[in-house]
Amino acid sequence: MTQASKHTSGEDSLIARYFKPLATEPGAFGLDDDAAALRAAGEDIVVTTDAIVEGVHFLGDDPPDMLARKALRVNLSDIAAKGAVPAGFVLTLALRSAEEAWLKPFARALGEDAAHFGCPLLGGDTVSTPGPLMISITAFGRLPQGTMVHRAGAQAGDRVFVTGTIGDAALGLDVLRGGPVAAALADDVVGRDFLAARYRVPQPRNALATAVRTHASAAMDVSDGLAGDLTKLCAASGVAGVINVPSIPLSSAAAGLLARRAIGIETLVAGGDDYELLCAVPSDHVDAFLRDARRAKVAVTAIGGLIAGLSPPSFLDGQGRELKLRRLSYSHF
Amino acid sequence: MTQASKHTSGEDSLIARYFKPLATEPGAFGLDDDAAALRAAGEDIVVTTDAIVEGVHFLGDDPPDMLARKALRVNLSDIAAKGAVPAGFVLTLALRSAEEAWLKPFARALGEDAAHFGCPLLGGDTVSTPGPLMISITAFGRLPQGTMVHRAGAQAGDRVFVTGTIGDAALGLDVLRGGPVAAALADDVVGRDFLAARYRVPQPRNALATAVRTHASAAMDVSDGLAGDLTKLCAASGVAGVINVPSIPLSSAAAGLLARRAIGIETLVAGGDDYELLCAVPSDHVDAFLRDARRAKVAVTAIGGLIAGLSPPSFLDGQGRELKLRRLSYSHF
Repeated sequence: MTQASKHTSGEDSLIARYFKPLATEPGAFGLDDDAAALRAAGEDIVVTTDAIVEGVHFLGDDPPDMLARKALRVNLSDIAAKGAVPAGFVLTLALRSAEEAWLKPFARALGEDAAHFGCPLLGGDTVSTPGPLMISITAFGRLPQGTMVHRAGAQAGDRVFVTGTIGDAALGLDVLRGGPVAAALADDVVGRDFLAARYRVPQPRNALATAVRTHASAAMDVSDGLAGDLTKLCAASGVAGVINVPSIPLSSAAAGLLARRAIGIETLVAGGDDYELLCAVPSDHVDAFLRDARRAKVAVTAIGGLIAGLSPPSFLDGQGRELKLRRLSYSHF
Repeated sequence: MTQASKHTSGEDSLIARYFKPLATEPGAFGLDDDAAALRAAGEDIVVTTDAIVEGVHFLGDDPPDMLARKALRVNLSDIAAKGAVPAGFVLTLALRSAEEAWLKPFARALGEDAAHFGCPLLGGDTVSTPGPLMISITAFGRLPQGTMVHRAGAQAGDRVFVTGTIGDAALGLDVLRGGPVAAALADDVVGRDFLAARYRVPQPRNALATAVRTHASAAMDVSDGLAGDLTKLCAASGVAGVINVPSIPLSSAAAGLLARRAIGIETLVAGGDDYELLCAVPSDHVDAFLRDARRAKVAVTAIGGLIAGLSPPSFLDGQGRELKLRRLSYSHF
């Protein structure tokens, strides 16, 4: 904790200059105090935390604005999955040095997302590190007492829904790494850019949070791959999932790669970083859930149902035959 | 985000084994969900976050149990300074690998402190890093709506109090590094151990939180040195501090070093990591504050007062002459 290994006062004022404007919530006290205050009148405060590390979760030359969005959005996705409304976040940044060229676009994008999702910066800590850049965010949401949606709670008979499309982010990472997907899309710059963007900047489904809280018996976000995360939700709920693979919503890029056998279905259902929502919805809530999702302008798709039992999820083809997937747990290629 | 750079499933279960027992709060859901829920009926939730990095805030061979305590306690100290009662914390651990020999004592000490301070683990994220170990904690406290104690709020005429003794931790760091303090205490193993412990394991003054909330007009914890932190409190409050140096409470080890001129007073008032509380108390609250501090069994000492004006703090010797201190801001040697 020598002076040299801490930030200089110049770095401190640079950090303050870029982050203070993001502290729009009165309880952030303009980042001038040692703590923030979250008011909660009879609500529960949902708390989630996710960190991303250079060289592990992102590449050293990833644009700072995209890192800012990803770091916040992976947390917003958890808040949405639990049925809560964003309330704010705290940020811990471990930096080798505080450089304007990095901090300025990082803070600007973070501020734009914070405003867009109604999730203001409440506080944080910036520490010096000799190692990789690390961005750790703890985000807060509000919901009425006792109404958080859990992984546990799904029942046999419930329908299984996902938002958006599945598997794009795993393909996007391969594109960014110049892997086989990049080669298969050598002539398709639009497809490559679409998939890369799906990896780099998740689209958290916070607009669906109230519908999730009102109708879902269990929910989580899909961050480690649909198959693995469905396995976790089913295990927590004590049920088994049966998925109709042709129902799984795919982007046209992913569907095209699958149709010409450039990828297998495993790549899509085992790939991580989707940040879509996975919800179990009791059958008598399905119509209302679909109506509320339409109103929220979030695409949701029924991909199967839950049955009694504790076996791993089954993935059925169009003829109802079980597909043997080699990898159900998280893995990028 | 390859599989190889994430934790293995064996590491994941090791992490779960050691941290689940710490999730004693019902709202932690046994760490089995994607988020925790903090109930808050008409209270404010105070939020603070502090991270420590290997090679910057601690040494690579520091014992894991001490790191656990320090990481939690620096946050507990902020919660205390704001007048709040601990409510829980989330932990982000960036590890090169998950090793039982490190995780077991780390988690055990963290659990002991969490129980002792009534601050249970609510959730967290463990990420793999190729770089230095990093421990980031976001801690929560509760207090009645609108009663958080700020840096701002102190008035001319208020008395200035600190808890415990000042400057020990800076001396302790020097001892651990084998610097001049270690040399000056070559024959005093008790003194060396005392000072090193003051650096390694802060004693957050959470027992004083209610007295702070009831009586202090402004407060913060002393983490970057008494002189620098007093400067911040005064600047936020728009007042000037006048400190009577002989009143600053010193441990016998620090007092002995000062008496034989092995160190100067600057080392004590500019040294960081005290994690004592600095409070401004209006004169009509002083008696009640002293009484409540006695009941809380926390030593508090009046070290000066606040006057109108915006000048930097004055440090006066026993004859009322101003001492010229060369360094008022944070620095360890």
